[in-house]
Amino acid sequence: MSDITTASVRRSIWHGWGDPAARHALPPSGLSRLAQEIGALPDAPSGGPVAEQDVRLPEPALPGEVLEALRAVVGANGVLQDRRSRLEHAGGKSYPDLYRLRTGDGSRAPDAVVVPADAEQVGGVIRCCAERGVAVIPFGGGTSVVGGVTPSAKRGPTVSLDLRRLDRLVRVDPISHTATLQAGVRGPDIERLLAAHGLSLGHLPQSHQQATFGGYVATRSAGQASTGYGRIDDNVLAATVVTPVGELVLDHRAPASAAGPGLLDLVVGSEGSLGVITEATVKVHAKPTEFTCAAYAFASMDEAAETLRVMIQSLGKATMPQVCRISDPDETDVSLALAGPAGEALARYLRLRRMATPCLAVLVWEGTNATVVRARRRACTNVLTASRAVRLPGRIAQAWRQGRFSGPYLRDELMDRQVFVETLETATSWSNVPHLYDAVGAAIRSALAELGTPGLVQCHVSHVYETGCSLYFTFVAREAADPLGQWSRVKAAASEVIVAAGGTITHHHAVGKDHRPYLEAETGVLGTRLLRAVKQTLDPQGVMNPGTLVADD
Amino acid sequence: MSDITTASVRRSIWHGWGDPAARHALPPSGLSRLAQEIGALPDAPSGGPVAEQDVRLPEPALPGEVLEALRAVVGANGVLQDRRSRLEHAGGKSYPDLYRLRTGDGSRAPDAVVVPADAEQVGGVIRCCAERGVAVIPFGGGTSVVGGVTPSAKRGPTVSLDLRRLDRLVRVDPISHTATLQAGVRGPDIERLLAAHGLSLGHLPQSHQQATFGGYVATRSAGQASTGYGRIDDNVLAATVVTPVGELVLDHRAPASAAGPGLLDLVVGSEGSLGVITEATVKVHAKPTEFTCAAYAFASMDEAAETLRVMIQSLGKATMPQVCRISDPDETDVSLALAGPAGEALARYLRLRRMATPCLAVLVWEGTNATVVRARRRACTNVLTASRAVRLPGRIAQAWRQGRFSGPYLRDELMDRQVFVETLETATSWSNVPHLYDAVGAAIRSALAELGTPGLVQCHVSHVYETGCSLYFTFVAREAADPLGQWSRVKAAASEVIVAAGGTITHHHAVGKDHRPYLEAETGVLGTRLLRAVKQTLDPQGVMNPGTLVADD
Repeated sequence: MSDITTASVRRSIWHGWGDPAARHALPPSGLSRLAQEIGALPDAPSGGPVAEQDVRLPEPALPGEVLEALRAVVGANGVLQDRRSRLEHAGGKSYPDLYRLRTGDGSRAPDAVVVPADAEQVGGVIRCCAERGVAVIPFGGGTSVVGGVTPSAKRGPTVSLDLRRLDRLVRVDPISHTATLQAGVRGPDIERLLAAHGLSLGHLPQSHQQATFGGYVATRSAGQASTGYGRIDDNVLAATVVTPVGELVLDHRAPASAAGPGLLDLVVGSEGSLGVITEATVKVHAKPTEFTCAAYAFASMDEAAETLRVMIQSLGKATMPQVCRISDPDETDVSLALAGPAGEALARYLRLRRMATPCLAVLVWEGTNATVVRARRRACTNVLTASRAVRLPGRIAQAWRQGRFSGPYLRDELMDRQVFVETLETATSWSNVPHLYDAVGAAIRSALAELGTPGLVQCHVSHVYETGCSLYFTFVAREAADPLGQWSRVKAAASEVIVAAGGTITHHHAVGKDHRPYLEAETGVLGTRLLRAVKQTLDPQGVMNPGTLVADD
Repeated sequence: MSDITTASVRRSIWHGWGDPAARHALPPSGLSRLAQEIGALPDAPSGGPVAEQDVRLPEPALPGEVLEALRAVVGANGVLQDRRSRLEHAGGKSYPDLYRLRTGDGSRAPDAVVVPADAEQVGGVIRCCAERGVAVIPFGGGTSVVGGVTPSAKRGPTVSLDLRRLDRLVRVDPISHTATLQAGVRGPDIERLLAAHGLSLGHLPQSHQQATFGGYVATRSAGQASTGYGRIDDNVLAATVVTPVGELVLDHRAPASAAGPGLLDLVVGSEGSLGVITEATVKVHAKPTEFTCAAYAFASMDEAAETLRVMIQSLGKATMPQVCRISDPDETDVSLALAGPAGEALARYLRLRRMATPCLAVLVWEGTNATVVRARRRACTNVLTASRAVRLPGRIAQAWRQGRFSGPYLRDELMDRQVFVETLETATSWSNVPHLYDAVGAAIRSALAELGTPGLVQCHVSHVYETGCSLYFTFVAREAADPLGQWSRVKAAASEVIVAAGGTITHHHAVGKDHRPYLEAETGVLGTRLLRAVKQTLDPQGVMNPGTLVADD
């Protein structure tokens, strides 16, 4: 386990006051294309965040007795009340989280940040807080974009329980291809630790550089290569959850089991509302050594989706590219604009091929055996050749791979220029994809237009299954007079349409606080009652992450 | 939905008084080989079942008021109290279930069999029973081998709720490859109904000919082709469960979702203890048109398992044969003995190849595209060629396919000859397979030897995963003086060793009543409390399948 002081805290760049070297500047071509769509933007960044020391922060409200009790568990230097620590734990990375802090509103900050050294200390902190009615928010990478780690607006005393010191690879079984990791291990460290054994988790969400293993499990995360390696919920084999009533250890001891209902699946996606996942065992894979990329253009989303559907249904999951991503015409247009002259040349070429509004597809096959990787690619190429897709130079896919984690870093740059930028995602069955795609795009566009800030709405498919796929929307507009109101209106419009059009309210961002009102559409009234009964059993005082997943009323 | 009277009830053959044409005689070669192992057997069947009319059956104990209320829900002819109906619902197909009925003990028979016509009537029956404290045992194919549908020994008034009339394919989405089926559709009918749409579920447990769709879902069933098509829990996308407190509809509306914990996984494997699964939506596959089989012999189980491990970890699940089955030396020996002269010739050939105790592997690849099926087989063959396995004629695998559902039918024949015969199964991670295999085999052998009835213990691997595999044990011995005591002793010895040696107590037979004492080793004390809280929420009166999965105290 790491020392508290040396544990690297690399989480703040998106707040605007982090490492300036990590900023990703938006190229001029991108900015002018954007202005064309959403109206004139300021020439220079002007809406930058207030200085860190100017953020308004409430006085910490934990009674001295509670602080003493916490210090008795984690040591004096394990309880942090300094400004920086509290601000870093005031929220995740949703637009409202960022907006509040950038404009000096630190009202959501927890009263203290507690940094336990191991699962035993996690238990001590939770018991201490449960006895005293103090809310506990488990905090990993802090990359939730749905309010999952944001203290509730109507909260009482609250601590953020930072898992950064639980950063060990506990166990590896190289024969069975399984590994047990502690919750606080960050994405790149997961891969580094496993690589020493020739293994890989292959879980690469866009938040990878900051997100943690425990966060993956707690949110039912999916990564950019999940078409190939599966979502985290496909890969979790066991988990230990420290709850207010004790330690819940769920281990089916086998790749699969018929020993009763899947209790492990109650924990995966529980978002800290039942307890703290301190470690989990996952399926891992031989670290890939062979890579091959391809890029294609399709004439429409319908054609692209249809081709991927036929591919996965006829070839099976394991033949598919690990990464399988299609951008709709708007996202393709923006990507090409961001790519400068090379992108413009490609756009011209595609117009010559009669693709006025092309959809760019990026495919990446990985593996350890060159023959098998080639054979998989060949089988997929046969399906692509039978479609009307146009093959593009492979370096387009390479360029995507190089920039695969950079997207989120552009948000600071855009928000500095008073641009409203947000993402949301859903998934549905293949037969419903065209309807859901149209409906959600239209809802976001019309909500933005009604606010007088017409927006640019882009979408991509990034996860392909035998029975359907995900849809990921990114939208930008000029900031309205009330940006948080603007966010609420658009988010509500999109969420209502997702529910009405038969999509899931979230494919991989989780529920948090933002999606909670829409969860019952999927679980029904009885499902909500079940979830409450489960929470009541493990967290009778209701101190675990109040308001996230389950309403705190 | 079918009429009650015309609904075909094809479930009784294993009881010994079913259709004589369906009996599978044991060939003389098999009988003599068996006698060699476990001692002399009677020349002719002598321990046959008592006549149906001689089974001792308690008087039905349902008060007239209850019967009236049930008749008001399902109609007068939907409530059956005749001897045959009650006997058919007195248990499943475990050794104790069969033994009791064959020896005239009908004490477990329910007081009545209720046959609702649809989900609404299911709800009416459950409400009616919950209000009156009458136990309800959902009954599909009645093929449970773990006491899952056997009325509890300490029961009060009990009805068996037979789902045979819920036999419809409700919906097919040929684009998304999904289908919604009612609970009572039997295995062969699932395939027949889907075949009309060019689709297949590919779920083929050995109980396939009698088992039902709802039973598959309720027990987390796996089939003989699950290495290829996945277990039922891998394929369920939505389910409707009628519970005493209302209808629970769980539908993530998508192939995958991060919308909270996996509540659907509470229902899959719930074994009727929470409510009745009336319908479910599953992933289906294009009906395979291409088949290719192979058979190999390995020098040992260790070598065979190691080869399959390398195969699935290097090639991925979708390249694997759909059917992937290895018999240990004892099972191989018996199979060859049962196969008559051809088997003897093969055994001689393998001895010449220095395989004194060979392990037979049967592999079947299926699909719709001959090129893809061939490529998958080629990739697997490369792995097999690199091992020391000996390739055998493909007709051996063909023969296995033809007899794939016949195993259970041999039990009557054996029990008629006073042979004790039972099966049990587990699964574990690859690194633990050799230990678990040795430990369970030794425990069964030594328990039988201690009883003075030395047994023949066979084992096969029939489900292969990236991280491990299943182990399925079949054992036979001469009947002891107290066959039920013999069964208890051997079952307990095997179960205790499975738990101690790190296996799951059941890979696909489910928990029922027989595995319940061992479940807590996997769920822990808190897991048991969670399961009770879930049951308490949906079945507050505790009328649903009492004693199955959750203890009825």
